[in-house]
Amino acid sequence: MATCWLNGKFLPEDQAHVSIFDRGLLFGDGVYEVAAVFNGKLLDADLHLARLEKSLAAICIPNPQPTSAWLEIMQSLAEQNGIAEGLVYLQVTSGAAERDFAFPANVTPTAFAFARKKSLTNDPNAKGIVLHAVQDIRWARRDIKSVAMLAQVLAKQEAKAAGAFEAIMHDRGVVTEGGSSNLWIVQNGTAVTRPLSHSILAGITRDVTLELAAMGVPVMERAFTLDDVRAADEAFMTSATNFILPAIRLDDAAIGNGAPGPITMRLRDAYFVRAHAKTT
Amino acid sequence: MATCWLNGKFLPEDQAHVSIFDRGLLFGDGVYEVAAVFNGKLLDADLHLARLEKSLAAICIPNPQPTSAWLEIMQSLAEQNGIAEGLVYLQVTSGAAERDFAFPANVTPTAFAFARKKSLTNDPNAKGIVLHAVQDIRWARRDIKSVAMLAQVLAKQEAKAAGAFEAIMHDRGVVTEGGSSNLWIVQNGTAVTRPLSHSILAGITRDVTLELAAMGVPVMERAFTLDDVRAADEAFMTSATNFILPAIRLDDAAIGNGAPGPITMRLRDAYFVRAHAKTT
Repeated sequence: MATCWLNGKFLPEDQAHVSIFDRGLLFGDGVYEVAAVFNGKLLDADLHLARLEKSLAAICIPNPQPTSAWLEIMQSLAEQNGIAEGLVYLQVTSGAAERDFAFPANVTPTAFAFARKKSLTNDPNAKGIVLHAVQDIRWARRDIKSVAMLAQVLAKQEAKAAGAFEAIMHDRGVVTEGGSSNLWIVQNGTAVTRPLSHSILAGITRDVTLELAAMGVPVMERAFTLDDVRAADEAFMTSATNFILPAIRLDDAAIGNGAPGPITMRLRDAYFVRAHAKTT
Repeated sequence: MATCWLNGKFLPEDQAHVSIFDRGLLFGDGVYEVAAVFNGKLLDADLHLARLEKSLAAICIPNPQPTSAWLEIMQSLAEQNGIAEGLVYLQVTSGAAERDFAFPANVTPTAFAFARKKSLTNDPNAKGIVLHAVQDIRWARRDIKSVAMLAQVLAKQEAKAAGAFEAIMHDRGVVTEGGSSNLWIVQNGTAVTRPLSHSILAGITRDVTLELAAMGVPVMERAFTLDDVRAADEAFMTSATNFILPAIRLDDAAIGNGAPGPITMRLRDAYFVRAHAKTT
């Protein structure tokens, strides 16, 4: 049985429970983060924890742990579960309270975390993933990394049913982001991704990729359409637990020549080099 | 300690827990219903359970109980908790599963229910409630009675902070619905409420009120604006656990003469007459 962490204690996952009155369960009143584990070490956990602070502040939940404690908990979960490559997930909700939409008078947050193995180095998806276009029906505050994600559940379920790895969500043809990733295209040698706003999540891997790309590839933050994706030279997705994955098809349309693009794979390689440097 | 029901068993509320891997907690992948208890009996629970079926079908969760079993559970909760006037809440999620956005291969739903006392007959809000205007930032499938309601939490928190009882949610000035209610205005003797679509929840109390009103008051299903509310003769909200409540102010603007309107109160009285007839 894997070990998780709940409200201050490490315990077997099958013993980790929350009240049916937890506001995470009743309202989706909670936020989360997922950080990669690479070479047995947390990758960019500091950046994820900084975003956690922002998400919590946006919905007025006090952070139940200082960053240093979160880092210890997350690293310990990776070690206790023998994870060399994988992820640590953490979630904070506004806790159990008498059911009422408005915030409870005294919030006692619920916090938990767990870890999973996942191969990052030998990921078969590096051969190229398929995207499936789905109307973006989410709420307007997509910058908050909230657990109220039924729209993403439906989008990614639809993508899976269509044989795709990721949903490409769009608002009347204009791409917002992936079901759980940021999306990019390469046009005439320039790597393009949508600028930050309330319309998308500020992906940590997106930020890192922007920095890496800028070292050798022109980058541009600009919204693009599904047609732009179909006509692009390359496309790729970024996410904390997938790093950088080439997209080779958007539904029936091949992207570029239908194989992972050279700029994408250069960026993917650079991401791994950075990840190794950060964790060894 | 109050008694609740969880996955087939009645138990004390402080013993009712779900796994941290419950998809209701991780994704907001669940739906709910709230039915009133009046004269110790369920009111319109059959209508609520019919809507539950629709919500569950929309997100592909099998209903864990036939309607007859739900009715017994709900009625038993009212009785075990000695409730003459109040409510029964029930929720169904897609259950605990390894975390992945797409639906699990085999869904074992989590289902729970609890009951609460709430005075319906002697409700001080019958003297008139205040509405507070809030931008409607919810997702596009508001017809699904999902628990992924962080937008409503924020709306109702903002309303509470502004000293209002209910949020009046609007899309660029056009009213959608209340934070947890449907909204109505009375214009020149006609009761007006927004027509059903994916933009609002198909309120059970809204439906019943439409039928009741049509017996003596012209009704019209038509979208209206915040300005229409400010200029209306009367306004009111409908919800299963508030019945019909007059709205007398929208933020700083008095509605009508700033007192509960006569058509509103006639409808409220008619609603009580029907509720008595249905439960005695």
